[in-house]
Amino acid sequence: MDLSTLPPIGYAARADAIRLRMASRPIEGLLVTDMTNLRWLTGFTGSSAVAVLLADRMVLVTDGRYASRAEAELGVVGVDADIRIGFTQPEQHQLVVDALAGIARVGAESGSMTHQKWESYAAELPIEPAEGLIEDARRVKDAGEVARIAAACRCADAALSDVVPMLAERPREADVRTELEYLMRRHGADGPSYDTIVASGPEFAARPHHQVGERTIEDGDTVVIDVGALIDGYHSDMTRSFVVGAPSAEQQRVYDVLLEVQLAGLAAVRAGVAARDVDATCRSMISQAGYGDWFLHSTGHGVGLLIHEDPFESPTSKSELRSGDVVTVEPGLYRVGFGGFRIEDLVEVTEAGCRILTEFPKDSPCLPSPPTT
Amino acid sequence: MDLSTLPPIGYAARADAIRLRMASRPIEGLLVTDMTNLRWLTGFTGSSAVAVLLADRMVLVTDGRYASRAEAELGVVGVDADIRIGFTQPEQHQLVVDALAGIARVGAESGSMTHQKWESYAAELPIEPAEGLIEDARRVKDAGEVARIAAACRCADAALSDVVPMLAERPREADVRTELEYLMRRHGADGPSYDTIVASGPEFAARPHHQVGERTIEDGDTVVIDVGALIDGYHSDMTRSFVVGAPSAEQQRVYDVLLEVQLAGLAAVRAGVAARDVDATCRSMISQAGYGDWFLHSTGHGVGLLIHEDPFESPTSKSELRSGDVVTVEPGLYRVGFGGFRIEDLVEVTEAGCRILTEFPKDSPCLPSPPTT
Repeated sequence: MDLSTLPPIGYAARADAIRLRMASRPIEGLLVTDMTNLRWLTGFTGSSAVAVLLADRMVLVTDGRYASRAEAELGVVGVDADIRIGFTQPEQHQLVVDALAGIARVGAESGSMTHQKWESYAAELPIEPAEGLIEDARRVKDAGEVARIAAACRCADAALSDVVPMLAERPREADVRTELEYLMRRHGADGPSYDTIVASGPEFAARPHHQVGERTIEDGDTVVIDVGALIDGYHSDMTRSFVVGAPSAEQQRVYDVLLEVQLAGLAAVRAGVAARDVDATCRSMISQAGYGDWFLHSTGHGVGLLIHEDPFESPTSKSELRSGDVVTVEPGLYRVGFGGFRIEDLVEVTEAGCRILTEFPKDSPCLPSPPTT
Repeated sequence: MDLSTLPPIGYAARADAIRLRMASRPIEGLLVTDMTNLRWLTGFTGSSAVAVLLADRMVLVTDGRYASRAEAELGVVGVDADIRIGFTQPEQHQLVVDALAGIARVGAESGSMTHQKWESYAAELPIEPAEGLIEDARRVKDAGEVARIAAACRCADAALSDVVPMLAERPREADVRTELEYLMRRHGADGPSYDTIVASGPEFAARPHHQVGERTIEDGDTVVIDVGALIDGYHSDMTRSFVVGAPSAEQQRVYDVLLEVQLAGLAAVRAGVAARDVDATCRSMISQAGYGDWFLHSTGHGVGLLIHEDPFESPTSKSELRSGDVVTVEPGLYRVGFGGFRIEDLVEVTEAGCRILTEFPKDSPCLPSPPTT
């Protein structure tokens, strides 16, 4: 899609925001090797690079393939960095070491860097673990980021609208997945945000992480469709659930319980709220309705350059929601023999509550009526 | 696609093959954390698990989501392992530590394990780096693996046949990509093997790793299409190059040079040959033809559960080709202003030479004539 119609992402202020966090540890240099963090910090989208962030400058080391792309991408987003090209891995390593010469305390991402790489840097640099420094800044999205996520939601909404009538024609799960991923691109997405889930029937719809297969969707099935799109590196995430044909009394009852729970979960989202309290809201309502052992996962997670990132709305979460977090609210009810339902929206957390980014209707598990011919 | 029509993969013998390699280091236990290695060893396809390989047994530790899937997948392929479920990360860690209790020398994959994980294991276990132990065994494919790769090649061949006539209709690069990935699935693929490349025109076709974009393909363009499919975890890889309209004399000449080079590269492949010699064959012919600075990458790489794996046919490679290696042969010629061509086949290395797995025609850069109406 045409990104020039969306607000820009505020890359230019990010290096200084991270420098403030570095000063408070304190570390004098940060070795950025996690490619998601590196993209967030610099705008560089290639597959291989290292960034060195210092108090007064930034250095980006990459390989020969990416010389012009690095310059172009950093230039477009207004990020100021010295770009150094190493044509071999030893050359790149040396460029990183040179950039950090004389720096006394260097933070590095021990949770994503391999041990082998860590050892090779540690032999020459005073590195120490500095986890989560960028992740914690990255979770709060600016207007440009939210606009991309919202645009990705539109692609998934549109593809699902196109595909839902197909469910009545007894397709295979894999066919529904294939059409959805194709149509998201036709609607402007760069691709799917993750492996689309189409889980159908008494056994597979009861699996929250079902792998799409050859099963033919049948009358009376519950069908869980979990689908998202990718725009400019940003993900969307949505789940809608259906019954093929007229819902049974039990199917309707379970859906109604779940919808009420999901709406309550959305209502619980607000800046300042503990993420685990959103989970607790959904979990306690489900238990009170008598479906406690039908809920097999936690209530949600952050979404951005990764499909799963901080904050996580789970019973053990220690995060507090912040204005600008983009999180899912996705309770589900699953039971082998029954099948399952999950209703998932993606929302931007605000001071007053949240803004729902996913727009596909969810008020009923019924498929839309086929067009009369 | 229906995998039961393909020969099975020989999982059952793998643990013992790795035990022989362990004994020669020597190490008494191997901690397998790389998910590609773990899949190769056990048949488990989930996203999170650790395998512990010992002289007399194997233990697979995974989380609650995967309890039934792990049992089913290992059972289907005949791999014998104790499956242990940890519901939290600390529980899983403890299960791994318990499985290795009393083992004096434990190899671990320092090139893929994060430093943070390494430190947590090293606090309790006598781990030491043991790189490439499984990778080296994994590169040689058995009949079941080659059959899956060949089936993936058929999906890409068929999708490209469907899509090539579209090039004459001036589509955008992204549209060609979208149709190819859709059609590979319609032809039975689980998905694309990697981000399909459609690189067109004087500037973009000159970039070996072009990102597909909005550019409209025009008359006179060179177009490079690099496309592969995925079947049961196994990748295919193929590139074909075209000219839109009648090739100019220069386009035809460059294509003819490249085709001759690529055929010579294929002829150089044989078990026992140094991988760098295949590269040298192509590189020296290109230089002799006067295009030395048009060749911007190395000649090929292994393909299997990863799209890029050992052996690499590059000037610095130390590998010798083995019977059962599956490798690409993919010289290319690129020049900004001209555009580019790459011709890539995927082959199985044999004692006598190689068997070409990719079948789409490559004898000419001309598009097929449009059907007369």
